[in-house]
Amino acid sequence: MKAHLHRRYHFSASHRLHVDALSEDANREIYGKCNNPFGHGHNYSVEITVSGPVDALTGMVMDLAELDEVVQQEVVARFDMANLNLQDDFLHTVPTTENLTTKVYERLQKLVPNVKLEQVRVEETSNNTFTYAGKEEILR
Amino acid sequence: MKAHLHRRYHFSASHRLHVDALSEDANREIYGKCNNPFGHGHNYSVEITVSGPVDALTGMVMDLAELDEVVQQEVVARFDMANLNLQDDFLHTVPTTENLTTKVYERLQKLVPNVKLEQVRVEETSNNTFTYAGKEEILR
Amino acid sequence: MKAHLHRRYHFSASHRLHVDALSEDANREIYGKCNNPFGHGHNYSVEITVSGPVDALTGMVMDLAELDEVVQQEVVARFDMANLNLQDDFLHTVPTTENLTTKVYERLQKLVPNVKLEQVRVEETSNNTFTYAGKEEILR
Amino acid sequence: MKAHLHRRYHFSASHRLHVDALSEDANREIYGKCNNPFGHGHNYSVEITVSGPVDALTGMVMDLAELDEVVQQEVVARFDMANLNLQDDFLHTVPTTENLTTKVYERLQKLVPNVKLEQVRVEETSNNTFTYAGKEEILR
Amino acid sequence: MKAHLHRRYHFSASHRLHVDALSEDANREIYGKCNNPFGHGHNYSVEITVSGPVDALTGMVMDLAELDEVVQQEVVARFDMANLNLQDDFLHTVPTTENLTTKVYERLQKLVPNVKLEQVRVEETSNNTFTYAGKEEILR
Amino acid sequence: MKAHLHRRYHFSASHRLHVDALSEDANREIYGKCNNPFGHGHNYSVEITVSGPVDALTGMVMDLAELDEVVQQEVVARFDMANLNLQDDFLHTVPTTENLTTKVYERLQKLVPNVKLEQVRVEETSNNTFTYAGKEEILR
Repeated sequence: MKAHLHRRYHFSASHRLHVDALSEDANREIYGKCNNPFGHGHNYSVEITVSGPVDALTGMVMDLAELDEVVQQEVVARFDMANLNLQDDFLHTVPTTENLTTKVYERLQKLVPNVKLEQVRVEETSNNTFTYAGKEEILR
Repeated sequence: MKAHLHRRYHFSASHRLHVDALSEDANREIYGKCNNPFGHGHNYSVEITVSGPVDALTGMVMDLAELDEVVQQEVVARFDMANLNLQDDFLHTVPTTENLTTKVYERLQKLVPNVKLEQVRVEETSNNTFTYAGKEEILR
Repeated sequence: MKAHLHRRYHFSASHRLHVDALSEDANREIYGKCNNPFGHGHNYSVEITVSGPVDALTGMVMDLAELDEVVQQEVVARFDMANLNLQDDFLHTVPTTENLTTKVYERLQKLVPNVKLEQVRVEETSNNTFTYAGKEEILR
Repeated sequence: MKAHLHRRYHFSASHRLHVDALSEDANREIYGKCNNPFGHGHNYSVEITVSGPVDALTGMVMDLAELDEVVQQEVVARFDMANLNLQDDFLHTVPTTENLTTKVYERLQKLVPNVKLEQVRVEETSNNTFTYAGKEEILR
Repeated sequence: MKAHLHRRYHFSASHRLHVDALSEDANREIYGKCNNPFGHGHNYSVEITVSGPVDALTGMVMDLAELDEVVQQEVVARFDMANLNLQDDFLHTVPTTENLTTKVYERLQKLVPNVKLEQVRVEETSNNTFTYAGKEEILR
Repeated sequence: MKAHLHRRYHFSASHRLHVDALSEDANREIYGKCNNPFGHGHNYSVEITVSGPVDALTGMVMDLAELDEVVQQEVVARFDMANLNLQDDFLHTVPTTENLTTKVYERLQKLVPNVKLEQVRVEETSNNTFTYAGKEEILR
């Protein structure tokens, strides 16, 4: 029996949406208020979905402590209370939430042990959410 | 890289569930309290899911302002503070939340520019939600 | 030891804000979209706050079943799936949420047994809430 | 037109995670604080997703009252205010939320009339959720 | 300038409502399903409200880390993943949420440094909450 | 009849907690991760509570459009998508949420027409909230 586990983590960070290769006007046109030169911030919520067989003995898809350790190190410790624009992941990539979502997926993909990483979901505000399911995306 | 954007909108409306082709008794039997002749109302929440490649330069799936304009005009301005039974979409169709969900999908399908409309989700109450993914539905 | 119990109930209803003694223009000016002639609706949430000593033996402020019975009869059964404008309480009073809040308070005041009715709180939308604490209001 | 209905139910229960076939140390290692000998509890939220065509006349996927009756009897009445470890379903299976999710699915699968049971989703805490979509799982 | 800080903590526990001094019938009558002999559980949320002057230099009412340490030790570590009936606080007192609220208040009252403990609020379910503000209660 | 209106607004902003008059070490000691030199951000929610008599004719405490206009101009337009440290209000004051709460109160106090400003409540995260009720605070 294959079940899915969805586990949610939280961090607060700031970002500024600006692409150097574009003119000031184009940046303002594309990103609107998010192009404000001094940045702004969000309480991000990240939901990690993994799937795998339910172990017949332990009744578990995976050890939550192992997942927590990976996500804590790769995501929460890295991005909580940080300015996303200054992180390695965004030195050459604009820190939109779309890009944040794919970066989190790529960081976790090789590190989540023994289960399949199905999806990463990042909630920027209660009305604005992004999901990424990897290159061979098949799910919602 | 193909990502999904989920964006939520809100409106408040009233409706009465009643089908003229059915007897009073059948209406009462099928719709229960929702058949109350004077209608009742809800705070509806509508989540629109679109998918598309993340633009390599701007880091975005689509311009949120464009989506907002379409949904504002086709959904929020039309249904907010309205009696659904009196709207064009429900002159010959009972305004159940199932039908509201499919109507919203059909209205948006041709208007959402450059991305794929994946799903419309309408939350009627915190415990009651409907989703529609178009005729060739493949997702949850 | 005096503690407070806060208990929440839910109902869905429609209303139209309109005062006959005012002109059409004045009604539209005062109530905006809420004056829409065909009404609109909400999922209302009502929180009842009562206070009293914690019974030394049972450890309870009051029997929740007794409170439920009173609120079910006086509030939920009366207003759920209803058009507020057609209820007795609003025959001569416009069904704003302010007035709904005070009406609920007055209905419950004499019926809540053995405890003090401290406050009625009605949430109209997640951003819009009203509270009433009776004529000799002393609280927030 | 095929739409999905998602309906949420709630119950409170306690459980202890412990497998007799494992040593005390192994149990503590695997389940951590959840292995606490006296159990602990949760407010569980269960979302049932069913799909089917929207009836052209009634505008409904299914009669909610029928779904409520089945879920009330098979899930809420059985597990609300209960100790999961003492329920029939968990006499030989550890009551992890993974197993609870699959048991709810199996109980409902044959009883939900005329629609397809697509998924069962059990929220253990606001940060911890499990889903199960049956043996031939195809969806998220 | 005196401001209030409200900080929320979470724990999951089980309890059974039963008073030995009362007959089986009286227990069942008073506590209903909560008297179920095997207990049941909840995800409790505890909100601590403290007040004090905002420090002119640091702009803070108090050091959150100090508050966290006290609440972690006195409340979360004590009650998380526990059976409340077996805790010292409830050896001679029935673990209703009213009593849990007052016990948390009494535990914290002497330990919260330099600020006034204004209120303890315990949310048992999303619809059921209790508050206690100490013996000389003056607040809502 | 005096009722209270509670109305919620939202904005996203970044801040860095740092006081120039204190050493680097003292800043790090006091503010922890919030002292991170590059700032971080939050989705703030601001609830404004006002009180006044319910108008006998209109059934309203105040015109919501008037309140919205004042709060939009004084709070949302000023702080949304901004770096709080660069705002006039925080040139000589550290932008803790305590100070943000009192600043919002002071800005609104003289501008809210015909009603009493009872309280400003700023939610920084779902677990961390601050309230301020003015200099002669009497409420919770």
